[in-house]
Amino acid sequence: MQTLKEKILTEGKVLSNDILKVDNFLNHQLDVDFINEIGREFARRFKEEEISKILTIEASGIAVAALTAQYFKVPVVFAKKAESKNLDEEVYKSEVFSFTKDKNYSIMVSKKYLNPEDRVLIIDDFLANGRAALGLKDIVEQAGARLVGIGIVIEKGFQSGGKILRKSGIRVESLAIINTMSPGHIVFQD
Amino acid sequence: MQTLKEKILTEGKVLSNDILKVDNFLNHQLDVDFINEIGREFARRFKEEEISKILTIEASGIAVAALTAQYFKVPVVFAKKAESKNLDEEVYKSEVFSFTKDKNYSIMVSKKYLNPEDRVLIIDDFLANGRAALGLKDIVEQAGARLVGIGIVIEKGFQSGGKILRKSGIRVESLAIINTMSPGHIVFQD
Repeated sequence: MQTLKEKILTEGKVLSNDILKVDNFLNHQLDVDFINEIGREFARRFKEEEISKILTIEASGIAVAALTAQYFKVPVVFAKKAESKNLDEEVYKSEVFSFTKDKNYSIMVSKKYLNPEDRVLIIDDFLANGRAALGLKDIVEQAGARLVGIGIVIEKGFQSGGKILRKSGIRVESLAIINTMSPGHIVFQD
Repeated sequence: MQTLKEKILTEGKVLSNDILKVDNFLNHQLDVDFINEIGREFARRFKEEEISKILTIEASGIAVAALTAQYFKVPVVFAKKAESKNLDEEVYKSEVFSFTKDKNYSIMVSKKYLNPEDRVLIIDDFLANGRAALGLKDIVEQAGARLVGIGIVIEKGFQSGGKILRKSGIRVESLAIINTMSPGHIVFQD
């Protein structure tokens, strides 16, 4: 997605060889008009798939998923990260290691919101090592639902997540794939 | 907002005298079409206010804020809850006590995304004791920005948050205010 690549080049900041900050439009401040364009692009790529539900993970996936869901006219379900008093006892649960936060955490989805009839599109802002996506995939499988594909805004192509997921037969659509990066320099895959 | 009250009555579940679950459209599964209607209603109520930014807090405020922002054509900024490697050092910071999770946490907004020219609308899903809203208000004040109002989806009118905020002169618009509730029974303010 050309406009996304341009936005990453002009507004993103590479802090090290593996940290890209896109805080000003995707992760902290949200450029809602632009994220709408992202949603439209996901809708174009997955329009034949009869998606019944979009699954994401709190927190930074939620805005992309909610704005994208408008084009599919389906609900979003977001996996929750920590145990909370208000969550159902009956949950699908998976373990995820976060490299950003350097710790393991559980993700949970209430059994009420995923069922075997669902055709699920996973949406997330970043794909790096793929741990979050694999946790969400695990939850879709526990529910007996069909994982139709994964839509990612920015994939770090130099990390292993995309390779692992595609190798397992999943359709991964990343709107921008970064082959290499270093402070002041980003190379995208064509 | 009549449609919201009806949705709470038909889809909400009161677990105790102070816990209302609206997981199936607002807090875990997101009814994106319906949240769009909520956004349209906030836009109607605050349309004269020349809002320049919507401020919310991760995670469950994000969907409402992002869908609402479409009607104002402004960016969303969501306050982050825990320290993360990728967040700016230069942040506005406030302390919030969560009754749901029974602990204190910090909320943070990068100084880049709020400035003295901003006219800020705070959006959140729930207002109960008002701790999150007061933390966000504190951050708006630290930035020297103008807090134009607070838009809340569901206010627990029997808790003190709304009273405290209105008493301090802030315009609080809650789309549904619950006066009392108990399992199987909800009474709204007219």
